[in-house]
Amino acid sequence: MSLLFKKRVMTPGPTDVPPDVLLEMAQPIIHHRTKAFQAIYKEMSEGLKKLFRTSSPVLTIAGSGTTSFEAAQISLIEPGRKALTISGGKFGERWQDVYDTYGVEQIKINVPWGDAVDPAQIEQALKDNPDISVVCIVASETSTATYSDIRAIAKVVQQSNALLIVDGITAVGALPVEMDAWGIDVLVTGSQKAMMLPPGLGFVGLGDRAILRLEQTDGLPCYNLDLRKWLKSYEKNDVPFTPPVSLIRGQNVALKSMEAIGLDNIWIRTAKLAAATRAAFTAMGLKLCSTSPSDSVTGAFYPDGIDDSKFRGAVRDNHAMAIAGGQDGRGASWKGKIFRVNHMGYVDAGDTLAAMMAIEAELIAAGVKITPGTAVAAAAKALAQ
Amino acid sequence: MSLLFKKRVMTPGPTDVPPDVLLEMAQPIIHHRTKAFQAIYKEMSEGLKKLFRTSSPVLTIAGSGTTSFEAAQISLIEPGRKALTISGGKFGERWQDVYDTYGVEQIKINVPWGDAVDPAQIEQALKDNPDISVVCIVASETSTATYSDIRAIAKVVQQSNALLIVDGITAVGALPVEMDAWGIDVLVTGSQKAMMLPPGLGFVGLGDRAILRLEQTDGLPCYNLDLRKWLKSYEKNDVPFTPPVSLIRGQNVALKSMEAIGLDNIWIRTAKLAAATRAAFTAMGLKLCSTSPSDSVTGAFYPDGIDDSKFRGAVRDNHAMAIAGGQDGRGASWKGKIFRVNHMGYVDAGDTLAAMMAIEAELIAAGVKITPGTAVAAAAKALAQ
Repeated sequence: MSLLFKKRVMTPGPTDVPPDVLLEMAQPIIHHRTKAFQAIYKEMSEGLKKLFRTSSPVLTIAGSGTTSFEAAQISLIEPGRKALTISGGKFGERWQDVYDTYGVEQIKINVPWGDAVDPAQIEQALKDNPDISVVCIVASETSTATYSDIRAIAKVVQQSNALLIVDGITAVGALPVEMDAWGIDVLVTGSQKAMMLPPGLGFVGLGDRAILRLEQTDGLPCYNLDLRKWLKSYEKNDVPFTPPVSLIRGQNVALKSMEAIGLDNIWIRTAKLAAATRAAFTAMGLKLCSTSPSDSVTGAFYPDGIDDSKFRGAVRDNHAMAIAGGQDGRGASWKGKIFRVNHMGYVDAGDTLAAMMAIEAELIAAGVKITPGTAVAAAAKALAQ
Repeated sequence: MSLLFKKRVMTPGPTDVPPDVLLEMAQPIIHHRTKAFQAIYKEMSEGLKKLFRTSSPVLTIAGSGTTSFEAAQISLIEPGRKALTISGGKFGERWQDVYDTYGVEQIKINVPWGDAVDPAQIEQALKDNPDISVVCIVASETSTATYSDIRAIAKVVQQSNALLIVDGITAVGALPVEMDAWGIDVLVTGSQKAMMLPPGLGFVGLGDRAILRLEQTDGLPCYNLDLRKWLKSYEKNDVPFTPPVSLIRGQNVALKSMEAIGLDNIWIRTAKLAAATRAAFTAMGLKLCSTSPSDSVTGAFYPDGIDDSKFRGAVRDNHAMAIAGGQDGRGASWKGKIFRVNHMGYVDAGDTLAAMMAIEAELIAAGVKITPGTAVAAAAKALAQ
């Protein structure tokens, strides 16, 4: 228990959920084969389209972000053809693992952790391999707090016959992502990031080329995750399997809040909180994880001699705050080497100042030389700009 | 709507209410003449005794802090005898108004707004007027953010036949107040300050001398507010009139939270948040309202040329934050001249940093020369000490 701090979840997902959403989820259960549920579902689905900046369907799937991304990967690939999978972190590697599990042949572009991919590399790979069926890319690689230029990548992929499947899990609702205008074929996100909801829902936006692919091919063998089933139900404003009714109610309320604030404003807020955090980290002499920092999460390397588990334990125990550590993968071992702070969803300047104060205090306690007040002053200065 | 800030009530009452208390108040209604209610009521009453640091009864009265203080004033005075009423602000003046309304003769000690009373003045008045029946004093004068030395005053009053009635409305649960150890005869507070509850309940702790007075005299004519009725019911673990059941449930949960944190720790937290705020205000060049600052609320004078209503409107609109202005009274006109920030109840370092950032930003916007980041840096430094 912390004396001076309220509890805060400052991890890049799950994120804190606003009270009006929590209250909505506390409403009595309604059955999902009713007009009452269908009205909510329809409203939520329309809200999702606005959030995805698309006129195409956005499917709502029970499960995690991984559930939804895997569903897109396996439903959309043409059997016997290749996938181009780009990775620069844990989640890029996960989507490669998915196709490995199903025995899909892959062209893998692996960039160093913390770097963004160069769209020219993708263009070249597509030219060299005309039989590529899908391209998988992570917009905001949560493990390395790195943003890749999805707009440029979509432009390149649109010139091929391959479909672009974008992991927008820590991007949609936080960073500018324009599904239709940029030509993203498939855009996936999860409920526990910028969507201001607990974990439990994933969302898959399907553009025209993706829908055509679903109609014309079979994808890989799968039952529950076959997007054909979800799309068919969606067209009747329905769901193929029992949906998480309470989460859907909550998501509907969260989407209305986001619409009231304005998506462009949310992008500005996320960018400001990220800029404030980068300013504070830099002022404390920390080195950022990424050469292309994402605005949805900021990561920094620990100074020498800081023990990750002790440090984050102290942040948790003394400041009632959950922040994230690093992750291990094939491309790098960042477990114990970095920590990460969230800027998505229901998080504000006050939370960010509290996080900067907590991180500064525990770095000082661990022996790092920082003048007390440095981090919050730098953050407040950046926020005021 | 503010883009960067969540909603915060940073006024010195009402204060924000924690989620577990809000949830408890959302439980279905139970009837108050039941064992279920009595169990909750008993538990809450025991919790109140711990909070008041007393082994005497603490009555729970439906209404505001004013309801409870008036009940004490009129129930406890011996008819025909004098009251000594000390004022250095709006609330001291209110208790004088109560006795004026009932035609009670008063010896009034009025100190300048922002100053604390000298206990020697009270000692002298009691010597000069042996027919004084009660002494009314405000522990933490919310209107001027000023603390008076209740321990010393209680010592003085204990040597007379007068009863000491202490307005602890912004003191109990925030500042060290020891009802039994200091010899406070009557201690009053309200639910919407340090008690982490919405407005609607008042609490009256009655020491031995006060109970004796209730038994031996009639007080002034009153029906619902006659503490004799409340005490008689209390002794049977009951209430004389329909009580605010949901608020009582909520108060019970809030008291358990406070006990889990530890009252001494809460006093430390309040003092730290106050010290941080004073440091920030001073660093911005502001002058504090009080020569004896209370730790439960901090007030400062506006620099020349700042319009109160515009300033607090901007804090509200741009930073989603309610802070308090000044009040007018007989002793001074501080409306428009000061603003005040809360440190009681469900408020933390993050909220305080957010408030310092908001106040600094709007002072700068109004033309005051402050280097951005000054306030949060000073506050964080003080909090880290």
